[in-house]
Amino acid sequence: MEKKYISDRFKHILHGGDYNPDQWQDSPNVLSEDMRLMKLAGCNAMSVGIFAWAALEPREGEYDFSFLDKAMDDIYENGGRVILATPSGARPAWLSQKYPEVLRTNADRSKRLHGSRHNHCFSSPVYREKVANINRRLAERYKDHPALLMWHISNEYGGECHCEYCREAFRSFLKDKYKTLDALNHEWWTAFWAHTYTDWSQIEPPSTLGESSVQAMKLDWRRFVTHQTVDFMKAEIAAVREFTPTVPVTTNLMQQFGDTDARELGAACDIISWDSYPAWRGNDENDIVTDAGVAFWHDLFRSIKHRPFMLMESTPSHTNWKEYNKLKRPGQHALYSLQAVAHGSDTVQYFQWRKSRGATEQFHGAVVDHVGNEHTRVFREVASLGARLAKLDAIVGTATSCRTALLYDYDNDWALSYAAGFQNADKKVFETAKKHYFPLWKRGINTDVIGRDDDLSGYDLIVAPMLYTVPSALEDKLEEYVRNGGTLLCTYTTGMVNENGLCHLGGFPAGKLKEVFGIWNEEIDTLYPGEFNTAEVGGKEYRATDYCELLHLRGARALGTYTSDFYTGMPAVTVNTYGKGKAYYIAFRDAGDLTDELTGHILEECGITSDFDGTLPYGVTAHSRTDGETLFLFLENHATTPAVTQTAHTWHNVESGEAVTGEISLKPYEVLILARKVQ
Amino acid sequence: MEKKYISDRFKHILHGGDYNPDQWQDSPNVLSEDMRLMKLAGCNAMSVGIFAWAALEPREGEYDFSFLDKAMDDIYENGGRVILATPSGARPAWLSQKYPEVLRTNADRSKRLHGSRHNHCFSSPVYREKVANINRRLAERYKDHPALLMWHISNEYGGECHCEYCREAFRSFLKDKYKTLDALNHEWWTAFWAHTYTDWSQIEPPSTLGESSVQAMKLDWRRFVTHQTVDFMKAEIAAVREFTPTVPVTTNLMQQFGDTDARELGAACDIISWDSYPAWRGNDENDIVTDAGVAFWHDLFRSIKHRPFMLMESTPSHTNWKEYNKLKRPGQHALYSLQAVAHGSDTVQYFQWRKSRGATEQFHGAVVDHVGNEHTRVFREVASLGARLAKLDAIVGTATSCRTALLYDYDNDWALSYAAGFQNADKKVFETAKKHYFPLWKRGINTDVIGRDDDLSGYDLIVAPMLYTVPSALEDKLEEYVRNGGTLLCTYTTGMVNENGLCHLGGFPAGKLKEVFGIWNEEIDTLYPGEFNTAEVGGKEYRATDYCELLHLRGARALGTYTSDFYTGMPAVTVNTYGKGKAYYIAFRDAGDLTDELTGHILEECGITSDFDGTLPYGVTAHSRTDGETLFLFLENHATTPAVTQTAHTWHNVESGEAVTGEISLKPYEVLILARKVQ
Amino acid sequence: MEKKYISDRFKHILHGGDYNPDQWQDSPNVLSEDMRLMKLAGCNAMSVGIFAWAALEPREGEYDFSFLDKAMDDIYENGGRVILATPSGARPAWLSQKYPEVLRTNADRSKRLHGSRHNHCFSSPVYREKVANINRRLAERYKDHPALLMWHISNEYGGECHCEYCREAFRSFLKDKYKTLDALNHEWWTAFWAHTYTDWSQIEPPSTLGESSVQAMKLDWRRFVTHQTVDFMKAEIAAVREFTPTVPVTTNLMQQFGDTDARELGAACDIISWDSYPAWRGNDENDIVTDAGVAFWHDLFRSIKHRPFMLMESTPSHTNWKEYNKLKRPGQHALYSLQAVAHGSDTVQYFQWRKSRGATEQFHGAVVDHVGNEHTRVFREVASLGARLAKLDAIVGTATSCRTALLYDYDNDWALSYAAGFQNADKKVFETAKKHYFPLWKRGINTDVIGRDDDLSGYDLIVAPMLYTVPSALEDKLEEYVRNGGTLLCTYTTGMVNENGLCHLGGFPAGKLKEVFGIWNEEIDTLYPGEFNTAEVGGKEYRATDYCELLHLRGARALGTYTSDFYTGMPAVTVNTYGKGKAYYIAFRDAGDLTDELTGHILEECGITSDFDGTLPYGVTAHSRTDGETLFLFLENHATTPAVTQTAHTWHNVESGEAVTGEISLKPYEVLILARKVQ
Repeated sequence: MEKKYISDRFKHILHGGDYNPDQWQDSPNVLSEDMRLMKLAGCNAMSVGIFAWAALEPREGEYDFSFLDKAMDDIYENGGRVILATPSGARPAWLSQKYPEVLRTNADRSKRLHGSRHNHCFSSPVYREKVANINRRLAERYKDHPALLMWHISNEYGGECHCEYCREAFRSFLKDKYKTLDALNHEWWTAFWAHTYTDWSQIEPPSTLGESSVQAMKLDWRRFVTHQTVDFMKAEIAAVREFTPTVPVTTNLMQQFGDTDARELGAACDIISWDSYPAWRGNDENDIVTDAGVAFWHDLFRSIKHRPFMLMESTPSHTNWKEYNKLKRPGQHALYSLQAVAHGSDTVQYFQWRKSRGATEQFHGAVVDHVGNEHTRVFREVASLGARLAKLDAIVGTATSCRTALLYDYDNDWALSYAAGFQNADKKVFETAKKHYFPLWKRGINTDVIGRDDDLSGYDLIVAPMLYTVPSALEDKLEEYVRNGGTLLCTYTTGMVNENGLCHLGGFPAGKLKEVFGIWNEEIDTLYPGEFNTAEVGGKEYRATDYCELLHLRGARALGTYTSDFYTGMPAVTVNTYGKGKAYYIAFRDAGDLTDELTGHILEECGITSDFDGTLPYGVTAHSRTDGETLFLFLENHATTPAVTQTAHTWHNVESGEAVTGEISLKPYEVLILARKVQ
Repeated sequence: MEKKYISDRFKHILHGGDYNPDQWQDSPNVLSEDMRLMKLAGCNAMSVGIFAWAALEPREGEYDFSFLDKAMDDIYENGGRVILATPSGARPAWLSQKYPEVLRTNADRSKRLHGSRHNHCFSSPVYREKVANINRRLAERYKDHPALLMWHISNEYGGECHCEYCREAFRSFLKDKYKTLDALNHEWWTAFWAHTYTDWSQIEPPSTLGESSVQAMKLDWRRFVTHQTVDFMKAEIAAVREFTPTVPVTTNLMQQFGDTDARELGAACDIISWDSYPAWRGNDENDIVTDAGVAFWHDLFRSIKHRPFMLMESTPSHTNWKEYNKLKRPGQHALYSLQAVAHGSDTVQYFQWRKSRGATEQFHGAVVDHVGNEHTRVFREVASLGARLAKLDAIVGTATSCRTALLYDYDNDWALSYAAGFQNADKKVFETAKKHYFPLWKRGINTDVIGRDDDLSGYDLIVAPMLYTVPSALEDKLEEYVRNGGTLLCTYTTGMVNENGLCHLGGFPAGKLKEVFGIWNEEIDTLYPGEFNTAEVGGKEYRATDYCELLHLRGARALGTYTSDFYTGMPAVTVNTYGKGKAYYIAFRDAGDLTDELTGHILEECGITSDFDGTLPYGVTAHSRTDGETLFLFLENHATTPAVTQTAHTWHNVESGEAVTGEISLKPYEVLILARKVQ
Repeated sequence: MEKKYISDRFKHILHGGDYNPDQWQDSPNVLSEDMRLMKLAGCNAMSVGIFAWAALEPREGEYDFSFLDKAMDDIYENGGRVILATPSGARPAWLSQKYPEVLRTNADRSKRLHGSRHNHCFSSPVYREKVANINRRLAERYKDHPALLMWHISNEYGGECHCEYCREAFRSFLKDKYKTLDALNHEWWTAFWAHTYTDWSQIEPPSTLGESSVQAMKLDWRRFVTHQTVDFMKAEIAAVREFTPTVPVTTNLMQQFGDTDARELGAACDIISWDSYPAWRGNDENDIVTDAGVAFWHDLFRSIKHRPFMLMESTPSHTNWKEYNKLKRPGQHALYSLQAVAHGSDTVQYFQWRKSRGATEQFHGAVVDHVGNEHTRVFREVASLGARLAKLDAIVGTATSCRTALLYDYDNDWALSYAAGFQNADKKVFETAKKHYFPLWKRGINTDVIGRDDDLSGYDLIVAPMLYTVPSALEDKLEEYVRNGGTLLCTYTTGMVNENGLCHLGGFPAGKLKEVFGIWNEEIDTLYPGEFNTAEVGGKEYRATDYCELLHLRGARALGTYTSDFYTGMPAVTVNTYGKGKAYYIAFRDAGDLTDELTGHILEECGITSDFDGTLPYGVTAHSRTDGETLFLFLENHATTPAVTQTAHTWHNVESGEAVTGEISLKPYEVLILARKVQ
């Protein structure tokens, strides 16, 4: 099994963070302290130049690379490398002033003023030209600098613009997709409310001032926004590749930021990286579920390219922009950092290295606080982690092996969110995905989190909750997957619409899925908050909330039935044997433990187990990586209390080198990194 | 007693709904299935052409009536009739594009873009011309078609526009009303905050950007919006009447939609129709009160013309645009449909016949679901109801006879809502009206719901809660009504202002009402949420919330007094004999049963009883219609549990023909339709 | 001790209110009744002409002073005086129509329309000219009128404008402050997110359309808004002073209105006045704390000039613009009015004399109700108070003597509110100030409420909660204050930033304060709502909420330590002896009684006691004024129950003249005004 590296030139776990020497150019002692402290903290990779455009090009065509020259040299001399950023995330005031077209136009057609960040039109020819220019100058200047490790393209791309350039680009995007207005009118179902378009020029993006009720248009607008963002990013990448064709590029993705499809942005990069800012609270009730949610995102980002990814931003201590910004408890920082590595990250990077003196993020956690020295709890925890990461070279580049996948698709989430019906306030597609992910996480099952366009054939179990959107290609793929022996678990709202939100006719779920699941879903009852129905499954009663589908069996077997309301006795959970595989269906939203217990049952049926053989108390989990010869296992205690487990294998502790077998004790927040040869 | 028909040409209960063949022109099998299913469902009247403008006139001046020709012919051939819509509720994209003046301007002066529906300026000369043109073409083409039953003018008129046309029309409206600026300045009390106008051109509509604090202006703006909407509708009606002078016209009204006065829109039509979308939940706690609220609106719409009205829209199963969209429980659909007939509707119409494939209302309940056949619970319930309605020809055109009226006035509700004082968040005028309506409904008392301009002379009891606005004409009318023997029940906030919200001087309630009620109301205490005072009435203690008036007796007798706070001992409920009548006054907002018990007492005193002689358990009610010879009684069980009552009369069951006397059992949601000769 | 009078020409407690004869020019009987009723009510000072511009100058350059001539004459003939208003708070419609530049521009750059009030640009040259003109005409006409007591400049100044005039003025303000862009870029820390300005013209005010993330800019914008408002007000004052150089001027301030700094507005006047509208509820749970909050503001406004101030507006009965507008209970009006006098007010003025018939405030409480006579509860309470105030001439002009000050600074509150971090929803700076004020109030300690620019040297105890902003001048002043023997009490978030929100480097609290307090604050933990930590202080456990700082002792002594979470054992409350003084520090937000108990302890240590020697039951307090010879003591019962206390002194009751000693009984809401010679 070949190892895949972030960079072939530096095969270590990267450790470091966003570094802004541009803010401290008048404080040489601060800059020299930074170098001393980086070494103390065990940092080897700094992200430099994010938001530095005003420093790099203080006036149009006037450049000043002095601070960056010094940073590149200093970091390299101190044993580090640089993840060099293109500065397009915020532009200089002079650029907005001279070329107002670079500023975004809001959905209500008001023009934005200069300010904040992420506030530039992705279509503006001028902005693209100015960005390409500064990117080229950076690439040309540093292409041979030994510190240059990779490119950090812009920062957290997101948002949208409604200017005339963007509106015209939207129309072109639609022409490319639909070819004819007739096709568009059909897919958008514009006959409803007389929305039929007779000229492409009549189409405007969704706006509170105009159209906000055509779901397919809103979906296409979201796709266009992703498309245009990717297009802009590709232009940025092309500019640096002119000079550095072999230096890998990444962009720091967000989970659900600006409603772009992070998978598509990631696909256009060499390496996936993302920014993780969970909301821990220091208590098990909140944190264990929250931590599993972080694992979900690690798995999703890793699954884009099925290779090691980068944790590009995280805070060493606290955020400053959440409603409440609590300190990480001692030990939490190491736990969350090593959790990332457990799920396939080959980096632990921070925002930020040093707290800025002023402006928006002056109180965001950093390795170096305003006090300016190493004598803080946070610095000590970072330095301690740095020392641990330095011992993990063997893990760098190893793979994550999964027999199970969870299907969570951005586009499907948008489609159901935009649909008018059922519970309009919140369809809870993502929450439901997390509810189905948790039983896998807590059992220590390595899981890929994939989208609907991904290959399904390699998995033994696919869990696809609330798979509302089923284009015909997906219908075929799911049918084939089950027919060939795969196990599939779906839920209420499956298979209702095509990729444009147009209802499938002839009964739900769509087409072949009726045969795959062996059911017909006649009606969906919607419950008010606080209302519950009940279902009996395997002799046990479960509470149903929000959604209850009224199913009819057409070949499937009922594993459970409703026990209240007028649909008492109708199937509530079904299983159907189809070809060599099996298809499970849960007809209601589980308010209790059904999802967990049924998942456990199915895993057992499929013979899918954790790579760790011991029991996993609540809050403890295990995830593994491998190079094909050695299995690296991260045994993580996410609880605030000590835990005990045991193993029949003999492992060795990667950090201490000691042998580990039999009973294993874990302190609160402790992560043990074990290894053994693959049998 | 002469029967009054919706249409003299078709004396049956109408049953059907909104039908959109324009959405399915490329699916001939769907269209032919529609005809087969309509007959199966017992449908005889379809509303066609709502929102079909883009299909009828795909390009300016190019018309295509083919789908409509076919629908008219097909429906007629299958025994049905057509309620033909004018399509002004949504205009084609080409119209917005070529004539932007037809788009509305918001209160903040932003111009709307094309999109959604109900988005056209009611003043725009171009829009009026284009609407008149398409209306004329429809009328000319179908004027002699045997399927044409009546006109459905536009759809759910509502909303407002602030364009220069509308602003100028507002000024004209004010000139017509006030004649001089001095008169306007006085009534608007503009001397406050130096708002005095010295030129008509200084007047702008209320806007968040400008004036939002002059209550009389806001009231006049609301009246203007209604006025302008009616004016637009009259132009629509005139266009079709050119060709079809004898075909009745209606428009589907809403309860409190767009803040227009539905009574004024209705008055300009031949027939009243409305759209009913209550929020049932399948439990007695919510639904019995909700159902009484629906009865309130049936009574209000019937009382506009004191003749049978139309239930124009309702859902066969669920809505899709509420926050939560629950299924109707089995039996609820028949109950709600027959309730409408009980209150004077001669139709049961649905939105919608068939679920659309895409766009906003694809998940709104319909007779035909996406599955496309008759094998659904919903279809079976509709068809079963169709069979029942077919047996009710004798009831068509009969009247509702009422000795009791409840006065609920839109304008009064607005005036109190706009007033700054007491509880600003919500004055709860409408909730209070419903609180006073419920005791009448549950006792099976036929009740008219009237406005302040209606004739009062025919009633024995008038309940007029929160009658804040008392113009001098109403003051005279109320005084005369009581003097001549009527019984009047009013409450806190009665008689404070004139029709423009200007306070009456000399003490509340205004003028003669102080003598009619025999009281002076010195102060109004306002309670915070969760605070309660108490009052003793007839030896029983009641809780007071929100409002407590501090009354002084000036001739009236106290039926109860406050028992807490500093106004302990002051009158809380009074009665006064005035002329041949009596005037009751409740000084506080009742948080319990006082309203119910006092209403029961007054009904007894007035000798007003239900047309059904048996006891009415909670949730069971009875409402009647008559042609002067036969009394038709609808005995309705709105509860989820069976009920038993009894009668000393001998009735016959209109549907089965069987005799009914003595003990009567009602299943959950059951409606019995009984008849007997009037003695 | 010299007495300081509101006006040397009228040495009585002023009693009266806003009087609007301009609204009743067509009702001569109303105007004559007003004069009769004023005398009955014991009123001697009316505020006339607020919002009367449309009456005074109905058309540009056409004046009509007739109603004002009559009012001035009538009031004087009836023994009263006039507080004459300049009418700039709302302008005539003709002015907005002819000169649109006088209308404000919103932050989103939309132009406002005419309407409401307080809607004029403070920078507009035209508006300044028109205001100066009408002010001059008023001053010239009435300069020698014997009724003219003082000037009431405009009304409740507030709000802001973003027009080009204001934006340019903002840039000038910044140039005056920073001199160079480099200085501005440093203090605003614009290197963050590439915000560096290279030309003054690039700077725009904060806007939702542009920049909203640069805290220092937002702070400077707030200061500019205050600056521009003061500048406008000074122009108003200059216009009247041309003709009446010796007539005192005031403007009615608000607590935290429009986010201007009321201290700066007040400083530019001769006399401080303010409008007080607390939200009483008639129960002790709410009202006692609310009343202490009112005392806080009385103390703050008095402390601006350390001389008697004016209660310019209050309601005799209820408001109409709060969400709930409850009646004052009998006795509350006298209590709140005399409380103002107790804290240094020499006036009790109302909004409003007579309820207007229409418009926004028609239902705001008034001395004369719509009934129009004296036979109301409210009128009787006002008249009774008028009789009491007439007996207090000896108190007029006396001083309030304070050894204790509470530091609450508007600018500091803004700075912390704008800071991103900790709890972003609400930093609760003001609530914390009130939490620290309450222990002083309930113990009857006279307290000044001062700002950070005030002189600290005269106090023995300074309480400065959440003193986040510490410019170097304040750092020096606090150090000097403690060194010279003062006692200082501070809390979490002390001394973190300079006056522009730029973090102090080298550890918190800033600079010398680390020595003064003898501590270093390493981290601030933020708790979620509902979370609590605990601390033990003096053997008792207290609950901590919201903020917990992790302190290290550097010379201080720990009075208490945390007892939960990972910082168990770290200092939670500290005291440090520094020079001749002492500095206390509370590291957490107290959710219980620590603030109260520690304040009691410190007062005892400082030997600071109330001027009343008896016990003060909960809800009873005592505040004093003095002329150096006589001590006037107001013993106030804010509770709804009777209270008993006692005194060892012999006082005389100022109103009855009787001797008071030993046990003293107080009825609910009773205020006793006592006096004795100063020993």
